[in-house]
Amino acid sequence: MERLPGFRDFYPEPLPHPDVWSADARQYIFDQWRKIARRYGFREYDGPPLEPLELFTTKSGEEIVGQLYNFKDKGDREISLRPEMTPTLARMVAAHERNYKKPIKWFAIPQLFRYERQQKGRLREHVQFNADLIGETDPAADAELIALLIDALRAFGLTAEDFVIRLSSRNAWQEFFKHGGGDHAHEYEFFQIIDKLERTPPDESEKKLSAMNFSLAKVNAFIDAGQPTVELETILKNLAARGLKDFVKIDYQVIRGLAYYTGVVFEAFDRKGEFRAIAGGGRYNNLVKLISGGKVDLPALGFGMGDVVLLELLKARKLLPKFDAPMDVFVLIEDENLRADSLKLVSDLRGAGYAVEYPLTPTKPDKQFKRAQELKVGHTAKLENDDYVRIRNAKTKNEIVTGLAGAKNHLAK
Amino acid sequence: MERLPGFRDFYPEPLPHPDVWSADARQYIFDQWRKIARRYGFREYDGPPLEPLELFTTKSGEEIVGQLYNFKDKGDREISLRPEMTPTLARMVAAHERNYKKPIKWFAIPQLFRYERQQKGRLREHVQFNADLIGETDPAADAELIALLIDALRAFGLTAEDFVIRLSSRNAWQEFFKHGGGDHAHEYEFFQIIDKLERTPPDESEKKLSAMNFSLAKVNAFIDAGQPTVELETILKNLAARGLKDFVKIDYQVIRGLAYYTGVVFEAFDRKGEFRAIAGGGRYNNLVKLISGGKVDLPALGFGMGDVVLLELLKARKLLPKFDAPMDVFVLIEDENLRADSLKLVSDLRGAGYAVEYPLTPTKPDKQFKRAQELKVGHTAKLENDDYVRIRNAKTKNEIVTGLAGAKNHLAK
Repeated sequence: MERLPGFRDFYPEPLPHPDVWSADARQYIFDQWRKIARRYGFREYDGPPLEPLELFTTKSGEEIVGQLYNFKDKGDREISLRPEMTPTLARMVAAHERNYKKPIKWFAIPQLFRYERQQKGRLREHVQFNADLIGETDPAADAELIALLIDALRAFGLTAEDFVIRLSSRNAWQEFFKHGGGDHAHEYEFFQIIDKLERTPPDESEKKLSAMNFSLAKVNAFIDAGQPTVELETILKNLAARGLKDFVKIDYQVIRGLAYYTGVVFEAFDRKGEFRAIAGGGRYNNLVKLISGGKVDLPALGFGMGDVVLLELLKARKLLPKFDAPMDVFVLIEDENLRADSLKLVSDLRGAGYAVEYPLTPTKPDKQFKRAQELKVGHTAKLENDDYVRIRNAKTKNEIVTGLAGAKNHLAK
Repeated sequence: MERLPGFRDFYPEPLPHPDVWSADARQYIFDQWRKIARRYGFREYDGPPLEPLELFTTKSGEEIVGQLYNFKDKGDREISLRPEMTPTLARMVAAHERNYKKPIKWFAIPQLFRYERQQKGRLREHVQFNADLIGETDPAADAELIALLIDALRAFGLTAEDFVIRLSSRNAWQEFFKHGGGDHAHEYEFFQIIDKLERTPPDESEKKLSAMNFSLAKVNAFIDAGQPTVELETILKNLAARGLKDFVKIDYQVIRGLAYYTGVVFEAFDRKGEFRAIAGGGRYNNLVKLISGGKVDLPALGFGMGDVVLLELLKARKLLPKFDAPMDVFVLIEDENLRADSLKLVSDLRGAGYAVEYPLTPTKPDKQFKRAQELKVGHTAKLENDDYVRIRNAKTKNEIVTGLAGAKNHLAK
C-alpha cells in the first residue's frame, strides 16, 4: 500500500531511500525554530488542523477553494484542512485577546495543506514556522519580527552571504497605483500582476498593465528606484542598529500574493536564487477585525517559513548536522546469569538520564561489541559480578571497575 | 467564527478561558515523551496525517469507517485522517525494514482523528505518544516496551501509587476460548464481549456469552484466578529485575478492542480508577505481513498514550509545573537617545542564547519595570551611556556596571 501523492514519510537517519524524508532533520529544524522564538519572547500556540471552510473564504474569497483540501464532514459541515495559520490565529486572538498583554508575540509550528490539482509531483503538505506580533502599529514591531526571521535562519548557520530579506511595502505600491490614476476597485488585481512579474513574460505583463492604464516601463522604473518609504527607512535603521543591515534590502518586486496584507511585506530568499522563497510575511492590520466580524480591531504582522525550502537550502549549503543519535551507554551482557542485575543497571542509568542500549536477548559478545560501536556509545558497561561493573570509555579506552550504585558517576553525557 | 466541535485551541498560559487548552502543557508533555523515548534508544518517525482509506479498512474491516474522519478528495480518492498510527507504521516499516537493524525501536507523536457521530462533546482529535518495537518475538521485547511506558509516566512525577499497568494476554484468552469449545470463527466476537465486560450489565454479558456456549461465571473465574502464562511470567520477572514490579499486575479483564492483537496486551490506568485508560498496547505479530500484502513478515508490539487523559491525570495529581515562560533579561530603555545601542545589546544577548525582552516603543520607566517583573526576568540591563551597561539581578538586587561587550558574562541563564 502506498502513501497518498504529495505526502511525506519521515524516517530515522540514515535514510533508507531518496524518496523519504528525515524525521531527525525535521525535529532539528523545529527545535531551532522554538529556541529562537523563545529568545525573542514569543509564546507557542496551536489550533485545529481542520477549520470551517468559511474561515478561509472570508479572508481570501471563494477562489481560494480550488486550492484547498476541503470536504463535507459527516455532520454536513463544509470544512477544510488549514492551508495557512493566520486565519486560525486571527480567530484565536479575537476570541481572547483581552487576557494577553499587548503586543502579543506568538508562534506556532503547524502542518499546512493545499490541494493543487494542476501541479503534479508538488507536495500537498508542509510544516511552517509561523510568528506573529499583534497589537502594535509602530514599525519597531516590523523590525522586531524581521529580526526574528533573520535569527531563525542564522540559527542554522546561514549567513548574510546565504540569504537576504527582500523588503517591500503595500503602502508604497498603493501610493504608486493611486498616483498613476488606478481605480481602487482594481488595486488587488494590479498587485497580482506585480506579484507575478518575475515569472511572467514582459509582453504579457505589459498587456495586462496597459489594460489598467499603467506601463511596464513605469512599473520597472519604480522598482529600480527602490525608494524606501519613511516606514521602511525606520525599519532599516532599527535593523542596522542590531547589526543586521546586511540581511535586508529594499525590493519592490516583492508584493506577496495574499489579499490581506496592508503595509510592509517581505520575503526571504537564498542569495544565489536557486530556491523558491524561504519565508514570507507582512502586515495585515485588518484581518483580526474581519475574522472577528468587527468585534476586535488589532494591527498585526507575521511571517511563515516552510520546512521544505529551508531543508533544501541547508542540504545544499551542507549545514545539516549528522543525525546518528549516539547512545550514552551500552550495557554488555556476556554472562546470562548476570542478566537480571544488568537490567537493573540499565534501568538505573536510564533513570539517571542516560540513553542506554543492551542486548534484548542472549547475544554473542562480539556482536554486542559491534552493536555498541554502531550506536557510537560513549561508554560500555559490563557487570563483573552482581556487585561490580566495569565501565569503559569508548574513545579513550580507559576502564574503571566500580560498585553498581556509583556507576553513573563515571559516565559523561 | 467558531472552531469545529471536538477540536482544540491551544493558548499560551495563563489560560484565558476554561474552554481552551494549554499549548505550554502540551509541549511539556511532548518534551518528556521525547526525552524518555531517546533514553530507551527509540528513534522518531512520522507519516502523513491523511492516508488511503484502505490502509485502515484492511486492518480493521469496513465497520471502522463509521468512526473515521474519511472523505473523497478532489482526485476521487477515498482517504481518511489517521485514527491511529500503527497502520502507517506497518506500511513504513514494510517499505524499508531492510535498511534498519532489528529490533527496530521507533516512536512518533502523531495527531489522530476520529469522527464519532453519537458521542457529542467528545474530542475528535488527540495527540498520542506511539512507541513500537519491531522484529523481536522474545518477551524481553515486551518487557522493554512496558518499561518504556512506565518510565514515560514516571517522567511526569507519577508513581506506582498513581498508576498501574494491567497486563493480559490474547494467547491466554485464546486458550480459554479453545479449551471451552469456542468456534474459531467467533473468537474475535468473544474478545469483544470480554473487552466490554466492565462497561456492560452482567445479565447482558451472560446472554451474549451463553449464545456462544460460555458462562459469565466461568469467564469471571478465569479472570479472578489471573494465572499468568509462561510469557507473562517472563515479562513480570524482567520488570521485577528492573525494579518495576509495583507498576504492573496481571488483569485478564483487559483484552483490547482492536482486532489485530496477537499476544500480550496491556493498559495503563490511574490507581483510583477516576479516568479512562492512560495508555494501551500489545503485540501485533501479523499486521506488518497483512499491510505489506505478505511481502514482509515481522513480529511487533507497541503502545499509544494519549495527551488528553494524561493531562487530566497530571492536573488532578498537581504534577504540572508552572508555565510562566520567564525571560532572562529585560533591557530597559529610559533614554531614547540610547535606543539604537540598546537594540544592539538586545541583539547581542539573544545571539548569546538569552531570552530578552525590551520596550518596542518609548515607554515610561515604571511601566517598563512592571513589565520586567511580570516577565519574571532574571536580570534587567540598562545602558548608562553608549559604552556601559548597568546589570541588575532581579532577585538579589545586586548591580554591576560593565562594558557592553562583557554584559553577557554577568548573566546566568
